[in-house]
Parts: sequence; C-alpha cells; structure tokens
Amino acid sequence: MPERITPRLPRGMRDILPDKMILRDYVMNTIRTVFEQFGFEPLHTPAVELAETLMGKYGPDAERLIYDVRQRQGHEELALRYDLSVPLSRVVAMNPDLLLPFKRYQIAPVWRAERPQKGRYREFYQCDADIVGSASMLADAEIITVIYTVLERLGFRRYTTRINNRKVLAGIGIYSGVEGEALGQLYRSIDKLDRIGMDGVRKELRDAGIAEDVIARMVDLLQIRGASADLIPEMMRRLEGIPIAAEGLAELRDLISYLDAMGVSPSAYQIDFSMVRGLDYYTGPIYETVVEEPKIGSITGGGRYDRLIEMFSERGYPATGTTIGIERIIDVMDELGMFPSSLRRTLVEVLVLQFDPSLLAETLRFAHSLREQGLRVELYFEAESVKKQLRYASRKGIPFAAILGPDEAAQGQVTIKNLDLGEQRTVLQSEAAQVIREWGA
Amino acid sequence: MPERITPRLPRGMRDILPDKMILRDYVMNTIRTVFEQFGFEPLHTPAVELAETLMGKYGPDAERLIYDVRQRQGHEELALRYDLSVPLSRVVAMNPDLLLPFKRYQIAPVWRAERPQKGRYREFYQCDADIVGSASMLADAEIITVIYTVLERLGFRRYTTRINNRKVLAGIGIYSGVEGEALGQLYRSIDKLDRIGMDGVRKELRDAGIAEDVIARMVDLLQIRGASADLIPEMMRRLEGIPIAAEGLAELRDLISYLDAMGVSPSAYQIDFSMVRGLDYYTGPIYETVVEEPKIGSITGGGRYDRLIEMFSERGYPATGTTIGIERIIDVMDELGMFPSSLRRTLVEVLVLQFDPSLLAETLRFAHSLREQGLRVELYFEAESVKKQLRYASRKGIPFAAILGPDEAAQGQVTIKNLDLGEQRTVLQSEAAQVIREWGA
Repeated sequence: MPERITPRLPRGMRDILPDKMILRDYVMNTIRTVFEQFGFEPLHTPAVELAETLMGKYGPDAERLIYDVRQRQGHEELALRYDLSVPLSRVVAMNPDLLLPFKRYQIAPVWRAERPQKGRYREFYQCDADIVGSASMLADAEIITVIYTVLERLGFRRYTTRINNRKVLAGIGIYSGVEGEALGQLYRSIDKLDRIGMDGVRKELRDAGIAEDVIARMVDLLQIRGASADLIPEMMRRLEGIPIAAEGLAELRDLISYLDAMGVSPSAYQIDFSMVRGLDYYTGPIYETVVEEPKIGSITGGGRYDRLIEMFSERGYPATGTTIGIERIIDVMDELGMFPSSLRRTLVEVLVLQFDPSLLAETLRFAHSLREQGLRVELYFEAESVKKQLRYASRKGIPFAAILGPDEAAQGQVTIKNLDLGEQRTVLQSEAAQVIREWGA
Repeated sequence: MPERITPRLPRGMRDILPDKMILRDYVMNTIRTVFEQFGFEPLHTPAVELAETLMGKYGPDAERLIYDVRQRQGHEELALRYDLSVPLSRVVAMNPDLLLPFKRYQIAPVWRAERPQKGRYREFYQCDADIVGSASMLADAEIITVIYTVLERLGFRRYTTRINNRKVLAGIGIYSGVEGEALGQLYRSIDKLDRIGMDGVRKELRDAGIAEDVIARMVDLLQIRGASADLIPEMMRRLEGIPIAAEGLAELRDLISYLDAMGVSPSAYQIDFSMVRGLDYYTGPIYETVVEEPKIGSITGGGRYDRLIEMFSERGYPATGTTIGIERIIDVMDELGMFPSSLRRTLVEVLVLQFDPSLLAETLRFAHSLREQGLRVELYFEAESVKKQLRYASRKGIPFAAILGPDEAAQGQVTIKNLDLGEQRTVLQSEAAQVIREWGA
C-alpha cells in the first residue's frame, strides 16, 4: 500500500453531499421537464474536446481559463469543454443529415480555471437549450418563454429578461459614427453600464478616442426608457434610414408580439438597448435575465448566433439559444428557503428496523415488499437497540420507521412510527406502504 | 473570425444524439430508481481530482491510462477521475462527521485512455452504489440484490452474479502453500480462467515457478462445482484449520442466507471460488455479474474493500459496493431490441402545425395549453405547406400532429392526427391533451 495522503480537493472544485444533491436534482429536473415540454431533446457531448475545437471561439481572456488535457501515450491536444455552445456547433457540423430544426438541451458541467470566490466554482453546470436551423423569431420567442417558464416554476417572481438585438446595436454605432473595430470597444464599454454607470461609459469611450459628439448621440439613444411596445417605434423613428437597425427592430417587434400568446407576462421582460452580452458570436436578438429579488444578478444569457456553426462547416445554420446558470439559482434558493417543504435532507421514506434476530428473514421480506411498491426504504444493518436505530432515523431526517416484533409478526402486522409527529400505528403489513404514503401527505 | 477547421472528436470519444440518449436515459433512470428504492442517495464529486488522490490506487497498468489535466496558470497536478470508488473514499475521509452508514450512488462519466475498439470508449459512464460504515453481510447481500433488481427491471433473464470471498482465496493460497507476493500472481492467473482455461492457468503458474504439487492442490479446489448451498460446507471441510478461510466461508454462508428473503432468485447467483476480480483493494466478498444471453460478459463488478479508505484516513471504514457498467448494457439492449416499445426516437408527443397566419396567436395559445397540461409539444416554426410539416413529424417519429384551421378555430376545436394509425379526429381544444394521451395508449 502506498503512503497515506491528506485528502484534498483541487482549488475551486467541490463535492456535493446528498442533502444538497437533493435540492440540486430538484432544480435540474424542473429545468429538464420544461425543456422537454418545449420539444427540446437530450444531447451528450464528451467533456474532453480537441483543443483546436475550442480555440479561437471565446476570445483570449476566456481561452486562458481553459484546462488542457494530456494522455500519457498519444499525441492529441485535448482540453476540457468551456461551454456547451461550441460543442453543439461541432456536432451540427459533423452531422449534416441532422433533421432540422435541431432542438437540443444539455445539462452538463463545464470547466473554467477562474479565480475561485464565493459562489463561483471551477466546475459548474450549465443548462442549455438551443434551436439550430430556424431563422424564425418564433424560435427566439420560444427560448424566452422557456426561461420564463423555468423561473416561474422554481418560484422566482421579481426578475426581468432584458432583450436587445445586435443589429440594433450595430445601427446605433452607424448612427453615432462608430464602425468596425471601434464597435467592439463600444460594446465592451456599454456592457459595463450596470457596474460603472453612464458617466463611466462616457469616460471609457472618451479614453478610447471616440469623439464627444459621437458619445453624446449614442448615450442619448441608450438612455431611451419606457414600455417595450413604445420603445421600438421610438427607436425606429430615431434610426430611420439605417437598414440594419430597421431589420433588428422589426425582429424585436415580431419577437415581442409572440410572447403574450406564448404565455409570458409583460412584466417579465424589457427591451433594453444598452444590453450587449459579452460574446462575439451573437448576430441578432440577445437576451439576459437578471433576478432583482433576491438580488443575484444575471442567471441566463443567450441569443441568436447565425454564424458560429460556420466556423466548423461550409454550410450556414441559423441558431439561437440560452444558457441557464444553475449554480447561483441553487445557492440563492437554498439561502432563501425557496425549495418545496416536501424536499427533505434524505430521499429515504422508511427505515426498517431490526428488532428480533429470529424475525430477520421476515423483516427482509417486508422491506422487499415496500420496495416492490415503490417506496424508498433503508434497512438498518446492525442488530442494535431500537432507541439507537430510531435515533439514526431522526438524525438522518427519515420520516417513518417500521418495527416488526413477534406480536406484530404473529398477526401479519407491523408498527409504523411517524417520526415527525411522534405517533405510531400498528397496521397490516400489506397495508403499510399505503399508510406511509397517506400519513406523510 | 479564425480559420474554419474540420470538426472532429478526440479518439475514443463520442457524441450521443437524442434518439440514442432516450434509450440511455431510460437505462440510467431505471438504475437510479432502484438505487433510491434501496436507500442510496446521490453524491457529486468533481471530474477533476488532484493527481495525488488517484496515484497508487489502481496499479501501474491502470495509472498509464489516467488523463492529466493542466491549467495555464496555477501549479496543481490534476487528473480526470478513473473510477468513482477512489473519489468516494476521499469524500468519506474528508467528512469525518458523515452519518454512517453512508449509502451513496453516483452515475457519472470516468475517463481512461484505453485503446479504442468497438464498444469500448475513453469516456464512459459508471453507476456505483456503495455502503460505507457497515461490516454486516446484510450490506453485501443488499448490493447483490440491487444488481439483481436492476437487471430484472431492464429485462435481462440469463445472467449470473458470481460470488467469492478474498478471504477464501487467501485460504486456498495458504492451503496450497502460496503466500505473500506469489499470491498476487496466483490471483492474476486464476482471473484469466475464463479466457485461457484451466490448462492455461496451470501453465502460467508453472511458468511463475509455482511447484507442480501446489498447482495440483489448488486446481483441485478451484474446480469444485455445485449448488451454492453445498459448495460452502464442502470447502469448509477441505480448508479446515485455516482461520481466514473459515471466516470467509462463514461470511459467504451468511450472505447467501439473506438473498432469498431479499427476493433474489437462486438461479441468479453462483458461488464461484475461481472468480478473483482484478483490483487489489478487495478484502472480503467479491461479486461480478456475467450476462450469458445475450453473451456480453461481465457488466458489474464489486466487493468489500475495508482498507481502501485508510489510504486517506487514520480511521478505518468497512465498505462494500458495486459498479454497474452501462455502456455494454445499452449497446446490447439496443442491438437486441430490449427497450420497451413505448420508447420512440423522439420525446416529442405532438407537433403543432402552422396553418393560417391569421391564426398564429391562437395556435401559440393552444400549444401553450398543451404544455401546461404536461405534454411535450413542438411548434413548427415556419409557415410551410401542411404536407411538408406533416412529413417533418413523420421523419422525426412524432406520434401526433395538431392542426388549427379557421373552421376548427371558429368552434374552439382542433384536428388531431394520429400519424401511427393514419387517422384524424376533430375535437374541442380543451379536450385535445386528453385525446392525445388516451389515443396513444
């Protein structure tokens, strides 16, 4: 045997023990159910990709966070996936016979070597839903509806999905006199609006050498506020004569017009011409959801990326989608007690006690019958005192205990203890599963 | 934009498209349900471990297959996990306050840079259930019962869980006159019995310098065959006076005695004194399941490993568990059509067609109401011919299509097409979800 080592985790990585996994699985199952109700289907891609698949897609700052992977024999340059969008693009390009539209979801970990801090991990899960092969604004509206449905089902009430369009942003650039490379700087500065305020944005643009009158014109446009339905005609008027802006605004108008019939409350979204989204590859509508209460910031990001798949394929594919970042959602729901009270610290519904060694076989048969009826049953393995066995059930948070003593056994009965209520009932073994189900409700 | 690259996967890795993911999720959900019914709870550990956590646990041949992971900034030596047992041991050692027994399951990928071949992948899933903190043979019997329940629910009928005990193997070694280092060679040779036959084993042992009379005595013992209940007293008689053998045989006797009351058919398991299991760390009962028809070989492996956690902790923990290897199970079930016929190529239950542009809002509202009632609904995004939309539904394997034309709309109705039967019914929109549910059954 090798020397004993002190057990440790890599920095920024964590284990998730069962009591927290139960909460986590609840959130992931809720999201999975919504994805599937909207016709998205599961896709698996490997955690390990060829490095060349990932490089050149996220920008240099992001690339520094990618983990390299090496095998001891073999020459491939490998890396851990950084997100789920680039692998999806690779899959689409490698499967030209895919029936379109291809609506897939993937709920899976990604890895980024970011500086660890509270609530930020180097391995974290993303929940992605994407639609490849449709240019319709119905597809974008559906993505926003998916986000809405997920957040409503999880119990969030005060949040806003901000909606913008990269074509409108390009139009604002043209209107202001900023194009090409400088447009990127413009985006990056506007993106910081939440953090540095409008004065901060002005200063950044001034430092980047953009002329004062250009800044003034632009800031004026970005500060348009109002109901989503009013904002679009107002911006159309201001950006009249700029085709790309007209196109983007028409897309936004169509998109918004679908949301009501899809069941999305108007209070859940807001056109926001100052919202940019960091990544380079967006080409049309973009969306980002900010939860205002509790204040957890941005928890979804996405948009239309009609050019990304072209990096892997001669054929172009329109595509749109979103990522839902569940780590913050789970942390906040846990802190604020937003989980249903039916979720306990354990999944186990009944602890079957060992009472009398001579009744062990009958006890095992009884546990077996409860499982056959679908209950989650733990058998206590050691022949210890009833008190000790019940204390274990309490410490673990198991709601029921079943005790099969000689008196009960003689009559085909069993005693069921409800540990929440501190009550017990002696019932027929054949009725025990039903009693446990109904007494718990 | 960087240059376009040809999209490729790393060697031995694969994508899994939705039609196959549906089958895969069915198998994983079946296993998860069984694990939970037996009181196992979910644990997550990171894919990336410190290299020192993995090294020295699996033997040198296995270690060569471990993938190294490097971050661009930072000094940690990292690696992708090779199995789920060593991470579990680390978790137990790092959480001394864990309530025992700790029964956890984990269904997750592991990575091994093995030579790719048909049905063998470099990223594959393991389904592990382990019980830490109980030395009772009830725990081992429960693990065997879990395997039995999983295979029965998946529809396997001809398989055998072979059961042996490392203590009996040590006793056979003592009886034959082999101890210490040579015992390892003995195990490795016996482990090949299935592949090289008894004559092959004899030859290997002879080549390893083990004396002819020792080999003869041992081979004689290994060839004992018969009903599990008869084998144990027979072996007890032959190995009389060797305490470790007596201990191991008593464990096997207890273990077997529990299986019947736990609902395991006697035809599903077999004591096999020649079964070894490769890994070094087993200390007591060991088990391995071989599916005989279809002939897919070993699909589960496990046993008691009372010393593994000591590699991370001064405190000792008895532990036992199994891995169920699902990749071969899934491949074989797919090849032989063992999946329930209710599983289709798609999860989508209804395609809602676009028929009349003026009815789009009503169509969206209808799709929304079907989803609210729990159906999995795809909306066709483009306003194309009904024929083309129906062809899409057929190609995708969607069982129902819903068409909302002006006549139907005027009466609050909708036409539902059953694409399997080639029939259609016009029903009230409010009844459509129920019609689809029942017509499909």
